Amino acid sequence: MFSARTILLGMGIAAWATASGANELRETATMLFGVVPTEVTAVRGAAVTPQRVELGRMLFFDPRLSSSHIISCNTCHNVGTGGADNIRTSIGHGWQKGPRNSPTVLNSVFNVAQFWDGRAPDLREQAKRPVQAGVEMASTPERVVDTLKSMPDYVRAFQEAFPGEGDPVTFDNMVIAIEAFETTLITPNARFDQFLTGNDDALDEEEIRGLQVFIESGCGACHSGSNFGGQDYFPFGVVERPGASMLPLGDKGRFAVTQTADDEYVFRAAPLRNVELTAPYFHSGQAWDLEQAVAIMSTSQLGTEMAEDDITAVAAFLRTLTGEQPAVEIPILPPSTIDTPKPDYMGAPQ
Amino acid sequence: MFSARTILLGMGIAAWATASGANELRETATMLFGVVPTEVTAVRGAAVTPQRVELGRMLFFDPRLSSSHIISCNTCHNVGTGGADNIRTSIGHGWQKGPRNSPTVLNSVFNVAQFWDGRAPDLREQAKRPVQAGVEMASTPERVVDTLKSMPDYVRAFQEAFPGEGDPVTFDNMVIAIEAFETTLITPNARFDQFLTGNDDALDEEEIRGLQVFIESGCGACHSGSNFGGQDYFPFGVVERPGASMLPLGDKGRFAVTQTADDEYVFRAAPLRNVELTAPYFHSGQAWDLEQAVAIMSTSQLGTEMAEDDITAVAAFLRTLTGEQPAVEIPILPPSTIDTPKPDYMGAPQ
Repeated sequence: MFSARTILLGMGIAAWATASGANELRETATMLFGVVPTEVTAVRGAAVTPQRVELGRMLFFDPRLSSSHIISCNTCHNVGTGGADNIRTSIGHGWQKGPRNSPTVLNSVFNVAQFWDGRAPDLREQAKRPVQAGVEMASTPERVVDTLKSMPDYVRAFQEAFPGEGDPVTFDNMVIAIEAFETTLITPNARFDQFLTGNDDALDEEEIRGLQVFIESGCGACHSGSNFGGQDYFPFGVVERPGASMLPLGDKGRFAVTQTADDEYVFRAAPLRNVELTAPYFHSGQAWDLEQAVAIMSTSQLGTEMAEDDITAVAAFLRTLTGEQPAVEIPILPPSTIDTPKPDYMGAPQ
Repeated sequence: MFSARTILLGMGIAAWATASGANELRETATMLFGVVPTEVTAVRGAAVTPQRVELGRMLFFDPRLSSSHIISCNTCHNVGTGGADNIRTSIGHGWQKGPRNSPTVLNSVFNVAQFWDGRAPDLREQAKRPVQAGVEMASTPERVVDTLKSMPDYVRAFQEAFPGEGDPVTFDNMVIAIEAFETTLITPNARFDQFLTGNDDALDEEEIRGLQVFIESGCGACHSGSNFGGQDYFPFGVVERPGASMLPLGDKGRFAVTQTADDEYVFRAAPLRNVELTAPYFHSGQAWDLEQAVAIMSTSQLGTEMAEDDITAVAAFLRTLTGEQPAVEIPILPPSTIDTPKPDYMGAPQ
């Protein structure tokens, strides 16, 4: 078991704490974190073209990707509410309750892998899962492709997004388009980013102190990179395991992916960008209050009981990570045709 | 019992049928129907101000108006899918199935009253009902007002939308704002409207013939006004009652509002603007195909078995009623605070 504080000290980056002025802090923060880019032009070899973004926008909002025809990607990853659904764990097909809190789609392209346990290497693989999960959208690749092929406007949009392909309307191309759209769901220019790029006035005194505490306490050991997390996996309870309300015993996290004992109760460190918009917190969605979440993290991950005013300062700093939210126009979707598979509530309570 | 055909002949507007050229048809259609306005500046005495539209847009998309926090107005009145949800009858809180097909919100400000049975005189009264209906959003006025008051950004938005009011965050003001936003959900400049305002080329031959059949057969007796319906109440089955699959015996329509025997199985004539986007059809949502819906209407309301090519022509004409769909940007909603009532799944299957 490692200590986050040891890592940071080992990296020799605690020098700022004794230095005065914003520049040292800025340098340290730049090294640990970094700004959110303003644009993504390609992702894992796939070009982000306007045609793919536009098609992806249609797909992201199309409830006919679910068998019921009432659940779209945006249902649980609402771009108007921090890219998540802001309930403990998502509600899906038949009002079934999902096992984990919905992670935000905002800036998700910058994560090393997707889902709380990182079981999908990228957004296109991620997008395949909820469509097929029985507790989420409860559809199948065949049904989705039949649905899309039944509408001439969709066929045209796929042809334009994937030119030269003989049969472009495929499940694989669908998720490439969704991924392309999701690369536009990024939130640059947060007050923290403004501070990082030279504006001393972007953060007030308490927020500066919160950033210092965040670094000094070791939060940045796991919550690192421009997303303040989403880069690696850590046990929930590095030092002290939280109670079963926060960390339900039945969900062993990444263990389900790797089948390795070391990965029991291991999760991908939550990205903290726009965290003020994405309560409730943790994979269990059990903490509604940002200050409470900071306190729990302090105890379980750092083994310290953080002082009340430090908690307040860290939470104040975290609220400076809210960036410019994406401006998304609701796509006008093509109407179903006589060949479109009908909505299906089978197996769901009526 | 009246005959739609008799009414039309009585109005002396069948003269066009023997006249040649588009002008006579245009005159008749202008008298019977009319174009969709491009703007609404006031509704029943309430000014449509930019501040109210903006607040209404937030409210229309805010799932926290439902007790579960996952159902918004847009869930069942999706502006990207013809202003409706395109399933037989809506799914609401706890995956409960609503009794009737969701009417489109598009151009609904031009209807004489709201709901299939006209039980709400206007959109602001309409908006109060789904919020409180147990099978829809399952909330209460008190809970909704507590929710809105818990978020400073909402309080500010209400103050700006209702200046000079001491306590502007009220359920009544909420629905005035929603109504203001909904007045922007109008779809002008359909090909039919272009024809009406002088463009002979806006409709092709079959669509012109469809319009002629629509008028000559008497469809326009009930489906009149710029919305092609939504102006008055008529029995479903004026001439011949359709089968119980289309007209479930348990739903007596406007009878529930007026308690008058004459109103058994009476409904507000469905507005036909954008009808190609709003399948399935009828209050029961049982007809998926526009041609099928026209055929059923012909038999039940007009007492004629319309010829196959007339049905095709009428359906082709009806597809020219699709107007410019509203461009709506998804509102960025204020985050919940510690005082915001938590989502509540009580009473719903988990």
